[in-house]
Amino acid sequence: MVSSDFKAMLLKLGVPEERLNVLEGKGGIVEDEFGGIRYVRFRDSARGFRRGTVVFENGDVVLGFPHIKRIVQLENGIRRVFKGRPFYVEEKVDGYNVRVVKVKDKILALTRGGFVCPFTTERILDFVNEEFFRDYPNLVLAGEMAGPESPYIVEGPPYVKEDIRFFLFDIQEKGTGRSLPVEERLKLAEEYGIEHVETFGVYDRSKIDELYELIERLSRERREGIVMKTPDMKRIAKYVTPYANINDIRIGSHIFFDLPHGYFMGRIKRLAFYLAERKVKGEEFDGYARALGKALLGPFVESIHEVASGGEVEEVFTVRVKSISTAHKMVTHFERLGVRIHIEDIEDLKNGYWKITFKRVYPDATREMRELWNGLAFVD
Amino acid sequence: MVSSDFKAMLLKLGVPEERLNVLEGKGGIVEDEFGGIRYVRFRDSARGFRRGTVVFENGDVVLGFPHIKRIVQLENGIRRVFKGRPFYVEEKVDGYNVRVVKVKDKILALTRGGFVCPFTTERILDFVNEEFFRDYPNLVLAGEMAGPESPYIVEGPPYVKEDIRFFLFDIQEKGTGRSLPVEERLKLAEEYGIEHVETFGVYDRSKIDELYELIERLSRERREGIVMKTPDMKRIAKYVTPYANINDIRIGSHIFFDLPHGYFMGRIKRLAFYLAERKVKGEEFDGYARALGKALLGPFVESIHEVASGGEVEEVFTVRVKSISTAHKMVTHFERLGVRIHIEDIEDLKNGYWKITFKRVYPDATREMRELWNGLAFVD
Repeated sequence: MVSSDFKAMLLKLGVPEERLNVLEGKGGIVEDEFGGIRYVRFRDSARGFRRGTVVFENGDVVLGFPHIKRIVQLENGIRRVFKGRPFYVEEKVDGYNVRVVKVKDKILALTRGGFVCPFTTERILDFVNEEFFRDYPNLVLAGEMAGPESPYIVEGPPYVKEDIRFFLFDIQEKGTGRSLPVEERLKLAEEYGIEHVETFGVYDRSKIDELYELIERLSRERREGIVMKTPDMKRIAKYVTPYANINDIRIGSHIFFDLPHGYFMGRIKRLAFYLAERKVKGEEFDGYARALGKALLGPFVESIHEVASGGEVEEVFTVRVKSISTAHKMVTHFERLGVRIHIEDIEDLKNGYWKITFKRVYPDATREMRELWNGLAFVD
Repeated sequence: MVSSDFKAMLLKLGVPEERLNVLEGKGGIVEDEFGGIRYVRFRDSARGFRRGTVVFENGDVVLGFPHIKRIVQLENGIRRVFKGRPFYVEEKVDGYNVRVVKVKDKILALTRGGFVCPFTTERILDFVNEEFFRDYPNLVLAGEMAGPESPYIVEGPPYVKEDIRFFLFDIQEKGTGRSLPVEERLKLAEEYGIEHVETFGVYDRSKIDELYELIERLSRERREGIVMKTPDMKRIAKYVTPYANINDIRIGSHIFFDLPHGYFMGRIKRLAFYLAERKVKGEEFDGYARALGKALLGPFVESIHEVASGGEVEEVFTVRVKSISTAHKMVTHFERLGVRIHIEDIEDLKNGYWKITFKRVYPDATREMRELWNGLAFVD
């Protein structure tokens, strides 16, 4: 349901009336509220409004974050995407995407899906200098929240030893979603002391060997990959390390039945293209094969044992919050996402933060596994 | 299109008129001809007529071969399917399913999909005693065609060293599709000298340890698995060896993009349940992990190299035929299945047989691989 004042606003913003009615009918746009600020989030796209777009009661529009294209053959991908142009190479950090925006007098953190995240919003000023938004109320900071204590992601990058951190990788205008050029973004990040994803410099296709070395170093360092961007941010492509492909499979195989097949197959595909492009052979090839096999089977078989002995498929994670009420808001937030979660433990860290331990249960994956373990005979 | 005389026959056989019209409209039933005998094959099911059912011009009906249910946890699966009942254990042979039937004065071999297979039909009397059908014109021999020289399957069981052979595993009545009891089938196979899949005897759930040993032996011997059947054929379940799961993945990974994700994920799942049920650990576990990883990556990476150097994803296979015209009929048969195939070589074996080498090309898989290799940037 979307109220009439929001509908009028969306029409004024250019959403065609027919599309608006269709979207509303199928729940493609949903009205919501956070801390007294009302907003509409787009679960489907409409006209220039991408999935994940948020329109606030004051007319502020934050476009959905665009999906960055992936290449699986680095050399040819660079040639095809960038031709001869130079491009910045930045780290692709393994976390969850947030857009940070000031609306009225509040600073809010939006998830990819267009929800205001209660946890990230509570914590965001630990990482982002509020003055930035005083000076630039019309800009949106897009970045990755990453670390071992995250509500959405099981692991973080190896260099975040505890809690979570924000890593800036894009600054966009409200309304248009236009990105600032890379240099301006880097300058603003420095000026306001906002942590930025690591930048590895400017490359072009002639420096492919240095890029291969970079990928191999990042893979050794258990990091996710790179994002390549022309200085004007018009052309962007991502490429992930073999480490990340295998590690994602390892994490996913624990909840095997909860993930679509494409989750695993896509990563196997990327790994195979890496091995082909780098002409990996012999013992090194076998090492990857063994790691892949263990990643697929190890956590999966452990989950089967867990369910076979009466347990459930579940994941435990922690977050640090300033107020326990934020933890409860997260439970509500997850419930709306259809996720079964509950608080396991609350610990006072005596530094103004509480450490909250959640347990997420996967009832469908548990049920499927239990049925198979119990001897279900099925046609496939 | 189905002619009016066939329609009248199907109505008489009990297919409801409305269903018949729907099926015809969407191509769910198709009229066909082989060697002057007309037939209708069911691509979809209708009433008691399963997918793969064939109705001949003389009114003979051969029901589609039923899909046998799979279990992935042997002990609990046996308990659930068979309770305390005894069951025969027979080898599950890795080949393609055929139903052999006498219609008018011809002996025909039907594929699972309900086609008369020109190759199998030409060769079937090499393996099946024609007298059987003189004595039992109302029975259908169902079995597996298996061997290294097969038009549909890349590999055969290790004990078929050349060509192909027929292995009986079921005898059904025309019309009803009712299976003969196991003992009657075994007796007829012996009496008429028809090769039968290996039988391992009668088991029940108390003999689970012997079954585990059997599975492990079959796996070591590179065999596919077992099918368990109550003597009256009313309850049937299949279980495959870890060897077969990994080997299927190895064969499939060569044509990675031509197969649905479920092909691979289903086999990984079965392997994981085997490892969990048998509590495989340590080095043995690592051995399976390595074998799985190599099966997934090895042939896949080779295919990428092949395509990267200008080649195509393809498979080569041979068959032995008595008449070269049979080879040409196979090409036509494959074309109707939407498969791109051509004859590479014809060799006179000087024993009444010709060895035909075919090449099957996978244009879609080749195109997808080539695009990715050439640096396609895509959203996933």
